[in-house]
Amino acid sequence: MKTRAAVALEAGKPLEVMEVNLDGPKTGEVLVEIKATGICHTDEFTRSGADPEGLFPAILGHEGAGVVVEIGEGVTTLKPGDHVIPLYTPECRECASCLSGKTNLCTKIRATQGQGKMPDGTTRFSMLDGTPIHHYMGCSTFANHTVLPEIALAKVREDAPFDKICYIGCGVTTGIGAVINTAKVEIGSTAAVFGLGGIGLNVIQGLRLAGADKIIGVDINNEKKAMAEHFGMTHFVNPKEISGSVVEEIVNLTKTDFDQIGGVDYSFDATGNVQVMRDALECTHRGWGQSIIIGVAPAGAEISTRPFQLVTGRVWKGTAFGGAKGRTDVPKIVDWYMDGKIEIDPMITHVLTLDQINEGFDLMHAGKSIRAVVQF
Amino acid sequence: MKTRAAVALEAGKPLEVMEVNLDGPKTGEVLVEIKATGICHTDEFTRSGADPEGLFPAILGHEGAGVVVEIGEGVTTLKPGDHVIPLYTPECRECASCLSGKTNLCTKIRATQGQGKMPDGTTRFSMLDGTPIHHYMGCSTFANHTVLPEIALAKVREDAPFDKICYIGCGVTTGIGAVINTAKVEIGSTAAVFGLGGIGLNVIQGLRLAGADKIIGVDINNEKKAMAEHFGMTHFVNPKEISGSVVEEIVNLTKTDFDQIGGVDYSFDATGNVQVMRDALECTHRGWGQSIIIGVAPAGAEISTRPFQLVTGRVWKGTAFGGAKGRTDVPKIVDWYMDGKIEIDPMITHVLTLDQINEGFDLMHAGKSIRAVVQF
Repeated sequence: MKTRAAVALEAGKPLEVMEVNLDGPKTGEVLVEIKATGICHTDEFTRSGADPEGLFPAILGHEGAGVVVEIGEGVTTLKPGDHVIPLYTPECRECASCLSGKTNLCTKIRATQGQGKMPDGTTRFSMLDGTPIHHYMGCSTFANHTVLPEIALAKVREDAPFDKICYIGCGVTTGIGAVINTAKVEIGSTAAVFGLGGIGLNVIQGLRLAGADKIIGVDINNEKKAMAEHFGMTHFVNPKEISGSVVEEIVNLTKTDFDQIGGVDYSFDATGNVQVMRDALECTHRGWGQSIIIGVAPAGAEISTRPFQLVTGRVWKGTAFGGAKGRTDVPKIVDWYMDGKIEIDPMITHVLTLDQINEGFDLMHAGKSIRAVVQF
Repeated sequence: MKTRAAVALEAGKPLEVMEVNLDGPKTGEVLVEIKATGICHTDEFTRSGADPEGLFPAILGHEGAGVVVEIGEGVTTLKPGDHVIPLYTPECRECASCLSGKTNLCTKIRATQGQGKMPDGTTRFSMLDGTPIHHYMGCSTFANHTVLPEIALAKVREDAPFDKICYIGCGVTTGIGAVINTAKVEIGSTAAVFGLGGIGLNVIQGLRLAGADKIIGVDINNEKKAMAEHFGMTHFVNPKEISGSVVEEIVNLTKTDFDQIGGVDYSFDATGNVQVMRDALECTHRGWGQSIIIGVAPAGAEISTRPFQLVTGRVWKGTAFGGAKGRTDVPKIVDWYMDGKIEIDPMITHVLTLDQINEGFDLMHAGKSIRAVVQF
């Protein structure tokens, strides 16, 4: 069949919207009509050429929602008409990682996914001249139709709006999951969130959901404050507007009459800046503070600290897709949204057509959007 | 009273054995006759002048065992004749840290302890000319008698030999505790231990106690192999004798037919070398590997890695005194020794008199001792 897609032909160039060929689903695969897709910084990381593992031409996009059109041989858990969210972190439920119970990082199709291929080593997309087009993060949601492995699709309820729940395919789950699955924040905890963009806001609402007491947001842009407060931030720190270091500021904000040591129980980096990651670690409480890295750092960048920070009880962790097991956890998060336990609507600041997709990247660069969504 | 002690008069000089003044215990303090004390690398770190926070003159030593001679006012949990192990990490059971249930790093007397003082801000030791002598790590076990706060003494059974259980005051508890309290290793785990000195051997026997399956020891000295095997090491890697990197070697050693990712579940650095700490992190399993820093790094040294290592599920931690709450946990470890669950005897390679204490430091430098103990 043919479908319309925004194709990244070369690193650093705008996407080009065009008609492409799409082969039908092979064994274990599913053809999905994408109804909406978010535009995420990770797409831009690859589009711009900053991603050393980026492959071109490719159809980017990994934050979508849609409807099953056709299933390949052997597919048993989905049928045409099912509403689904594509998963860049699949959940096969049979590899050593899935069965460990300790991680969401399914390894079943990791190798081919990294090569921009389906599990059989080929692509379903091609240019009209026959040139293969790479898949991206196993999803390629910047296309009206796409093919995914069955294990990379979460089945979700049918009354949930595509243009909102597509955001659960990455940003919402990453932020909330970092709190719930990776940090396992307890009621009454204190926390600091570095970077109040789309991920940071979802960390904040995850902390509110988890019952945190003090939720300290850190950003160099004062305009982020109001929205962060809406999602549950209780204290705001602009590192450019304080006299001391941000670590000292947070430690002081968390001292109490009983506890004169200070430091947050949990911190989260949603900036991708390795110096910020260090501050995020060092502002946690001596003895038990945990810091969770969410942001993606530039290629080659390294985090550093004195080992004393860890020897005195701090823990440095990271999270991918919020530690969520997609097929199991994503449908629950959709329920939380539909039940009003979490909010998404205020974060979807722009809705565009596929033809306008490059404007979505421009809005992200200009810091004008939290999330721009393409609706098909 | 007067007692005999080995005094560190100046950084970098040998200790001098001499008679010193010792004031009796004040409120909340206890006078202890030290019966035996180990000589640890941390003592040497300070004696040599490498410790930027080292104070002189001081009576070093923090790995002792002895008998209560006299109790100060208000002391309720100890009486003369009780056998005790001094604790450089006290356990007050009333500060925010003790009551958190999340850490062993009691903060009750941290400030004065760091200044080489008793909690009232003075010292009990002085030279015969009246010059105050600093306490060290709140213990100063290189003296025949010493004064400690009640909260810094673990009461232990009276049939345990001082010249063995003194080692529980630091090395044994640090190594075993890192496994049990900090990493919380489960039965059937795989683990790597970097550095097969006194701490590394205790990590290894902690892993055996915890039921680990594969216990991989890493050391550049082949002479460490036999003793490590005695304590439970199952595989030995000498980084100087392999063709690839130590990380690759360990990953390959842990691959199975079912799990082709490889990497240990837990790793432990007992070297204090920050490059080794990085290897220790990076050889752990994607998705869930935890690396525990035990070794003390040189002043100013920093650990580094790519944040991707953490984002893909590895956890970087550290441990001090093995995460053990001294008054609660040390008596249990003494029981484990007496019951034969753990071994100490083969690690006490040399027993010296106080007058021979500098020979103990020489043996440590030459790599000839696992632990040299001074017996009074």
